[in-house]
Amino acid sequence: MAKKLTELTWEEFQGFDVYEKGACLRLERPHVFHTLVAQQFDRRFLDELCELTTTIRTIAKDKEGMLFLKGLLAHKRAMLYFSQPSSRTFLSFSAACQILGIDTEEVRDTAVSSEFKGETQEDSVRTFSSYFDLIIMRSKVAGLAERMAWVLSNSDRPVPIINGGSGRDQHPTQSLLDIYTLQRSFEDRGGIDGKQIVFVGDLLRGRTVRSLATLLMQYRDVDQVFVAPRQLQLGEDIQKLLSKGGVNFSLTDDFDSAVLEADAVYMTRVQDEWDDETGDSRKIDTSRYHFTAAHLDMLKPGAIVMHPFPRRKEIAVEVDNDPRAMYWRQMRNGMWTRSALMAVTFGVDREIASQL
Amino acid sequence: MAKKLTELTWEEFQGFDVYEKGACLRLERPHVFHTLVAQQFDRRFLDELCELTTTIRTIAKDKEGMLFLKGLLAHKRAMLYFSQPSSRTFLSFSAACQILGIDTEEVRDTAVSSEFKGETQEDSVRTFSSYFDLIIMRSKVAGLAERMAWVLSNSDRPVPIINGGSGRDQHPTQSLLDIYTLQRSFEDRGGIDGKQIVFVGDLLRGRTVRSLATLLMQYRDVDQVFVAPRQLQLGEDIQKLLSKGGVNFSLTDDFDSAVLEADAVYMTRVQDEWDDETGDSRKIDTSRYHFTAAHLDMLKPGAIVMHPFPRRKEIAVEVDNDPRAMYWRQMRNGMWTRSALMAVTFGVDREIASQL
Amino acid sequence: MAKKLTELTWEEFQGFDVYEKGACLRLERPHVFHTLVAQQFDRRFLDELCELTTTIRTIAKDKEGMLFLKGLLAHKRAMLYFSQPSSRTFLSFSAACQILGIDTEEVRDTAVSSEFKGETQEDSVRTFSSYFDLIIMRSKVAGLAERMAWVLSNSDRPVPIINGGSGRDQHPTQSLLDIYTLQRSFEDRGGIDGKQIVFVGDLLRGRTVRSLATLLMQYRDVDQVFVAPRQLQLGEDIQKLLSKGGVNFSLTDDFDSAVLEADAVYMTRVQDEWDDETGDSRKIDTSRYHFTAAHLDMLKPGAIVMHPFPRRKEIAVEVDNDPRAMYWRQMRNGMWTRSALMAVTFGVDREIASQL
Repeated sequence: MAKKLTELTWEEFQGFDVYEKGACLRLERPHVFHTLVAQQFDRRFLDELCELTTTIRTIAKDKEGMLFLKGLLAHKRAMLYFSQPSSRTFLSFSAACQILGIDTEEVRDTAVSSEFKGETQEDSVRTFSSYFDLIIMRSKVAGLAERMAWVLSNSDRPVPIINGGSGRDQHPTQSLLDIYTLQRSFEDRGGIDGKQIVFVGDLLRGRTVRSLATLLMQYRDVDQVFVAPRQLQLGEDIQKLLSKGGVNFSLTDDFDSAVLEADAVYMTRVQDEWDDETGDSRKIDTSRYHFTAAHLDMLKPGAIVMHPFPRRKEIAVEVDNDPRAMYWRQMRNGMWTRSALMAVTFGVDREIASQL
Repeated sequence: MAKKLTELTWEEFQGFDVYEKGACLRLERPHVFHTLVAQQFDRRFLDELCELTTTIRTIAKDKEGMLFLKGLLAHKRAMLYFSQPSSRTFLSFSAACQILGIDTEEVRDTAVSSEFKGETQEDSVRTFSSYFDLIIMRSKVAGLAERMAWVLSNSDRPVPIINGGSGRDQHPTQSLLDIYTLQRSFEDRGGIDGKQIVFVGDLLRGRTVRSLATLLMQYRDVDQVFVAPRQLQLGEDIQKLLSKGGVNFSLTDDFDSAVLEADAVYMTRVQDEWDDETGDSRKIDTSRYHFTAAHLDMLKPGAIVMHPFPRRKEIAVEVDNDPRAMYWRQMRNGMWTRSALMAVTFGVDREIASQL
Repeated sequence: MAKKLTELTWEEFQGFDVYEKGACLRLERPHVFHTLVAQQFDRRFLDELCELTTTIRTIAKDKEGMLFLKGLLAHKRAMLYFSQPSSRTFLSFSAACQILGIDTEEVRDTAVSSEFKGETQEDSVRTFSSYFDLIIMRSKVAGLAERMAWVLSNSDRPVPIINGGSGRDQHPTQSLLDIYTLQRSFEDRGGIDGKQIVFVGDLLRGRTVRSLATLLMQYRDVDQVFVAPRQLQLGEDIQKLLSKGGVNFSLTDDFDSAVLEADAVYMTRVQDEWDDETGDSRKIDTSRYHFTAAHLDMLKPGAIVMHPFPRRKEIAVEVDNDPRAMYWRQMRNGMWTRSALMAVTFGVDREIASQL
């Protein structure tokens, strides 16, 4: 049975699987406290967050609205602790903070900081919690955000942690922005339920795909199609999970046929930063899985093309200005979604909703 | 005939000379959109911007005025994208944003960002345009700001670009602050018209001199004197331009005589960052062209000494506290001028003018 | 007799001892201008600053109060010029600025800035003073902050300098936060007067200990006990100063006995960044001077444990959640104290006091 972080030892919490961890984190309702794993989001949370995101976007359309938003959390300060560099995610969070008036500071390169050398990361994070009201952290170390969340929850000054990406698996706010982009794109057509989502590229290692595929299990009648060269196909762990959940999914290497049927084509790049030393993924020919101008003709009129970026050659630049190329808007959605998440974290969501 | 960026292919725009480009950019009036080249500023724009700059400076003298200014663009966010390091220009823009309440983020060293590696600069800049409302960029690559401006103008989300220095030639906001410093210094003596401006130092490669010399063609009866060792004298391209424009100018290596007659002495350092590998400029003796305490005795009482900074030994520190040493104020003028430019860019110039 | 910086040549000011310098800096009352040396703080200033710090902390407890504070100096901009890296001090100052609404910019690594290379630090600091209203600087160079304060005070645009740590000796705002932490911890027991303060660790080189020990001379009947291995014991210069001031102090290597009697145990780490090339301090066994869970049993109920951080192994993590472990709060006190200091610097202290 799920317990709060203050009722668990670190060893107990660490030993849970992601669903059990998610259940523990959901106990902090009505407001989310730590955001650590995509599995802590249930359908109701996702629906409410999407609605809040749209409300924020709408309010932000004029100066008066922007100033209202900027006053909401003008008394809060956030630390962006990015020991794994990621300018895109960093800028998105930073802009999201600015929208709500949250002051920010950053520690992006621990190498420049002599003080943080030679002390434990627990001490660093407790330092941040002394000065700031929220810590957004990104790390190459799996589970680090969870550890820090547990440490802070069991300290005199608990402050929320938002996981901005950790290790190979978790990047929960990327999942939120992906869900929101799908929801927004299909809002006039019944939302995400019943749609066919096609994932393309490095499905083995792309954490955005792994997270999104499992989150989509919360939606009704979603078909999932996974298009990749054999060596980069979706991991068996996720396949088992989807089977167990009764999801209608298929694996294929026939990109063109998948594009013809898709409501959304989710392109990804080869994640070669996770290659071993021999650089295994470079030997795989992925050019057959690139989305070209020709694919626009195959794509249904109401379908969309997504990409978590950065892209290399997965999508031709000729596609960029087609209205179905949703990846720029997807990026901007990330900013709005993160604003919405922080608004919920600090409990100003109702104040926002009542503004419309 | 000039056309807007949305009516031109990249090849067409790229093929224009700077005056033709300037004419295209001026079509965005009443408000400036992109600020790319000094040649887009006509006399009327310069006069209005100088007046606005003085108005901002006046309003900023007390707390109430500062808070008024800070509220003007508190709903806007700017990206400072400085892939060519320049702390002085960076800090000046940053402070200018703060004065108007614009929130900022920065990307100063692309090397720290793994995500921006391996993607095109077009993708990076479109990313910035997803999160921010203005991009201020500085680059060693000539024409990059122009390219990005064209890309954004032809995208779904055009945001203005301000060129904070690109390549060897263009640094339009430096020209604006130089013009404003001259205008402000001579405001009780009829402004810039009819004055004698003496340029000293590396006139061959200093982009501030090249830009300012051509901008001064818009003022009446300005004498321009260029003082430099032969190897660093003003390029023939600019000389031809001045001749064609009927400007009264002369080249000399007699520094002392020039100082005696000057209304403004514009000192510059040797631009050895543009040296070829053999370090050609180090062999040139420039010590004869240093402004020393002795030159203060030669200088007219109402004349001024300017320098775009950083300085090395071009101006002796003994000169610093003389009221005619205008280079510190010139620096501060840069901040005010950039605030004024951004106010015009976002169309709040009238709101400022009506405040006085 | 003390004189203001504008009435002294640099050579005169530089020649003064720290007490004479302190006396000069105190002439700027009622408000402090430059904050350079701990010796400029007299008892009355310390008492008033502690009271102001508590007032700010109290006001900051709700959103309305935070917004009041954030409006106080929203028209000011500060430069954080940290050529010696120190993320903890940096973040503390940054958060302190944010609390009062002061906009900030930073120059943390002069290496990234090509412009600041090849120019004097005087020119850099005068540049900062052109754009900003306050300069907070940290440098490995002893006396640099003093030099810059003198330069600015004798320029057309004097702006205050706060020394965020310079050289081996001066870190005046660390002393302020230490004093405040003691004062706050003992506020129900008559304050700092009459207490026994035990210093432990590298007392020879720790500038926080050296500063705090001398500042405590301003309090009545404070016993000071210095616990260290012989090679790291308190310098003779400070010992002489304490003797001359009639302070009751003792040197010992008996850590346990000292803990039994202490009202405050001030732990410090070995300052090996000041080691010579042979790394002399690594040969010293300091493990006997670590504060362990066992020491909690010896410690008096109302006593406190402090540490300026970062820590290595001087304090066991098991101690962290004991209510007498004051080092996390000490860190946060640094933020509040620095806010208070800046409030005094800009003369808004009375406005704050009248708010309660």
